[in-house]
Amino acid sequence: MKAIQTVLHPSLPPGVAALLRTVPGLAIHDPTDDDGVAAALGAGGEVLVTHTWRADFLTPSLRWIAGTGAGFEQYPLEQLGERGVILTTAWGVHAGTVAEHAFALLLALTRGVGKAARAMTRNSWEHYLGEEVAGRKMAIVGLGRIGEAVALRAQNWEMSIAGIKRHPESYVGCVQDIRGTDRLRETCAWADILILTAPARADGSPLIGREELALLGAGWIVNVARGSVIDEAALIDALTNGALRGAGLDVTAKEPLPADSPLWSLPNVVITPHVGGGSPGYAPRWGAIFARNLAAFRDGGEWRNRLEMAG
Amino acid sequence: MKAIQTVLHPSLPPGVAALLRTVPGLAIHDPTDDDGVAAALGAGGEVLVTHTWRADFLTPSLRWIAGTGAGFEQYPLEQLGERGVILTTAWGVHAGTVAEHAFALLLALTRGVGKAARAMTRNSWEHYLGEEVAGRKMAIVGLGRIGEAVALRAQNWEMSIAGIKRHPESYVGCVQDIRGTDRLRETCAWADILILTAPARADGSPLIGREELALLGAGWIVNVARGSVIDEAALIDALTNGALRGAGLDVTAKEPLPADSPLWSLPNVVITPHVGGGSPGYAPRWGAIFARNLAAFRDGGEWRNRLEMAG
Repeated sequence: MKAIQTVLHPSLPPGVAALLRTVPGLAIHDPTDDDGVAAALGAGGEVLVTHTWRADFLTPSLRWIAGTGAGFEQYPLEQLGERGVILTTAWGVHAGTVAEHAFALLLALTRGVGKAARAMTRNSWEHYLGEEVAGRKMAIVGLGRIGEAVALRAQNWEMSIAGIKRHPESYVGCVQDIRGTDRLRETCAWADILILTAPARADGSPLIGREELALLGAGWIVNVARGSVIDEAALIDALTNGALRGAGLDVTAKEPLPADSPLWSLPNVVITPHVGGGSPGYAPRWGAIFARNLAAFRDGGEWRNRLEMAG
Repeated sequence: MKAIQTVLHPSLPPGVAALLRTVPGLAIHDPTDDDGVAAALGAGGEVLVTHTWRADFLTPSLRWIAGTGAGFEQYPLEQLGERGVILTTAWGVHAGTVAEHAFALLLALTRGVGKAARAMTRNSWEHYLGEEVAGRKMAIVGLGRIGEAVALRAQNWEMSIAGIKRHPESYVGCVQDIRGTDRLRETCAWADILILTAPARADGSPLIGREELALLGAGWIVNVARGSVIDEAALIDALTNGALRGAGLDVTAKEPLPADSPLWSLPNVVITPHVGGGSPGYAPRWGAIFARNLAAFRDGGEWRNRLEMAG
């Protein structure tokens, strides 16, 4: 059996490259930068393992993009469809991890852990009054795998939970109060806590802007989705001049967050560097999906997490 | 009806003093230091609202200590019993809050929030690989109201949960795997995550010492109980030279934690300044207990959270 020419993007989640090297039947190419990736794909690469994209990755030999991220807004779906290139994602692989991360950010705000950790750099014991999530209203904006994992973990925390979903009629899960996207503003007014787990809009426009933040009022917001989901200038304004109690951000409009961003020094903000989905458990779970899809690629059969594209 | 001479210790939880001023039939005395408390009790104070104790608070007129903390290790129980002084505690009032705090500390360790918050003081986006609690074994040492609240919140987090209880035969709650205190070491060896919610021992000796930490190995430990529950020198050693992955501490052997403690600068430690039970919800919940007990004090009837003491 001919080896499958497999190109690994240099920035893969920890453990993924090591795992792929153990898979029989793959000829692994591991360039060190984007130019190298394009060159390897130009020289006959069939499978690309990546979570980023550049236009020149689309070569005549490319047949399958094995994505290591949950999203797909970075890929030229129409072109891929026209060329018959298969795209699979890591949808669901890190849902539980990101849900844990969302809680870590939320509780760092409500229990003052972000503030106390910064006081540690001054060896300083500074008493404060924390807050409770019990009795609060949590709105989960985006009930995909990640949003559902948040809702599941929130079940015994004495909160009221509502979820926003694009197609509420197709929802199956643990949230009783499901609302369509047309009820986003009403839900911002209702909620004390907003957890953002929705995909970025294709045009990059924010779901949560000035008006939604004003409706949320004295609440907390946690973003484990994409930076573009919030209007960042409006967020900074709500944190500085508005009623917003705090923001937990794993993602920002520009990443890495520029050193001169005012977000770094706001006391009611906790920032993590887009690590919400990272864990040692990621590679083996991703690998299980890859193994099934490799069988489909080689011998036919059912794909997992394959995007349907117009061809 | 004669007003009840009520002395408020100056360091009460937020909102408690304000609430007491609204209760009819109390003559409130609010000295500004311990000497003033002793003087007010010496001058006929009948009720003391406090969470700390000094030997000279025990005067002939004292009849009821309305404690604002869950613990009671600070009070001279035998003497109080001999004199017929009633002691009530705030047992259960902040159980949910402390449970949220325990999760905040745990997730700050596993998801790297403590580290990232400190990197914020340098405006620095520093990528790292977080960990998951899913798939881990959590041992809750002490299944009182707080331990139970932790267990309840952990139900949908895909962890195996075990609880240690002094009297496992009397346990009613959501934990299936209940173990007696004789199985503490075995449980340290079993666990990945140790949540300490047990009361301090009367003699101040630690429950968790060098051997227990060695058995826990590459795990995480969270202490929302009392500083004396852990041997702090052994903890620092396990964090520095041992396998221990991290410690989340709301309490320390000496509080405030001295500025020269090595705990401040260990990257795998998150410290909060004994605020685990604090929240705006505390005062109204404590007030509901106080109101019932005030009726019992005045007119007879059933007490809540009253300690049984040998008389």
